[in-house]
Amino acid sequence: MKNELVFCGYLQIDFISIKNVYCIDMKATFDRSKHVFHSEAFAEIIKDTIRFFNGTPVHQLPPPENFVGAGVYALYYIGKSPYYKHLYEVNRLNFVQPVYVGKAAPRGWRQARLQQASNELYSRLCEHNNSICQVCNLDIDDFRCRFMILENAAVDMIGTVEASLIRQYVPIWNSCIDGFGNHDPGSGRYDQAKSDWDILHPGRRWADNLKGNHPSLEEIKVKVLDYYDEKH
Amino acid sequence: MKNELVFCGYLQIDFISIKNVYCIDMKATFDRSKHVFHSEAFAEIIKDTIRFFNGTPVHQLPPPENFVGAGVYALYYIGKSPYYKHLYEVNRLNFVQPVYVGKAAPRGWRQARLQQASNELYSRLCEHNNSICQVCNLDIDDFRCRFMILENAAVDMIGTVEASLIRQYVPIWNSCIDGFGNHDPGSGRYDQAKSDWDILHPGRRWADNLKGNHPSLEEIKVKVLDYYDEKH
Repeated sequence: MKNELVFCGYLQIDFISIKNVYCIDMKATFDRSKHVFHSEAFAEIIKDTIRFFNGTPVHQLPPPENFVGAGVYALYYIGKSPYYKHLYEVNRLNFVQPVYVGKAAPRGWRQARLQQASNELYSRLCEHNNSICQVCNLDIDDFRCRFMILENAAVDMIGTVEASLIRQYVPIWNSCIDGFGNHDPGSGRYDQAKSDWDILHPGRRWADNLKGNHPSLEEIKVKVLDYYDEKH
Repeated sequence: MKNELVFCGYLQIDFISIKNVYCIDMKATFDRSKHVFHSEAFAEIIKDTIRFFNGTPVHQLPPPENFVGAGVYALYYIGKSPYYKHLYEVNRLNFVQPVYVGKAAPRGWRQARLQQASNELYSRLCEHNNSICQVCNLDIDDFRCRFMILENAAVDMIGTVEASLIRQYVPIWNSCIDGFGNHDPGSGRYDQAKSDWDILHPGRRWADNLKGNHPSLEEIKVKVLDYYDEKH
């Protein structure tokens, strides 16, 4: 029996499931362009979101009250550390350029498990406060924060909003000097290297336990200078 | 000198920065509602995105060609395993209910570091093919995949699209039986427990090295039954 296929528009045949019915010698088709998503409306929404974010109140770190909420936050540095002169200048009249952007997602988010409302954002900001207070060359009074609470279905936007803010501002602690957001890996895991951030800002007690080889302070300082050169 | 403040509209004073100018006894204000983001437009875009996703071609696993791209994917199970009878039925005429949703983001994405285009999605799907081929009670021919490529600024949507698909479909391997997406933790890290997925589907070589206490197969089977009860 000769097999004929008459194509009316787009016909996709799954030859594996019908292999016992027909004997078709057809190479599986693959058209990458059918999988690429385009959305101008999305780009506009992200701009609205960033504008909303930049309009939210700025607070000390940590914020003055505990509060329920998950979402995205930014830290701003307005002090006079020689590493961050650029931030001091660009933030002199307005909170423009974050030093760090992060997110605090609800527990169980990736498993689609509903949880009771909790204070993830506030907790995360308190963790950062603890980190900064432990180091010797940063003053917590030189930090401010903004944050945006995303609730219900908007919780799904958290990753995108964080990514968009990082893409827009390329904060130095997200891009060049990483490690600020790290946690104590726990005993038995101290064979890894100290992060760039812990080398530049020594003092976090758990980071002192890390025994792996790491760059020198001079090498990190060169990275900071290169970062500012790229930004200008 | 008596200090008076005349409020014209909304006035926010950062009392820390002006503490040397005035002596103001003002409690820092905190209004949670100013930080909560609302967007109906976003909900509509997510629906458009899910609809686009459901319209993309379905392929065998792995897809027939290597291709450049990062984005989001779904795996569908259409076999006759007794654990997944529900999937067999609901997917009988159409690819409706994924067994797993995941993402493959570009390297360096979270650090806003630009990278050369790479084949993250294809690589991730090949990893999953390897996992399934190693286990004794799953047949790779019973799997299909869809995927959506997100490029340039749309890369930032990856987390949100993945989260939205997980929220919409609550795939069993994302919610109830986790561990499918795990990687070999490496030697020195085998003191952790086997995941639920590796208990239900034994055979991944690195998973056999894991020495921690884990639930029994019977307990995992009960979880699977509870999952289907909740879905109906």
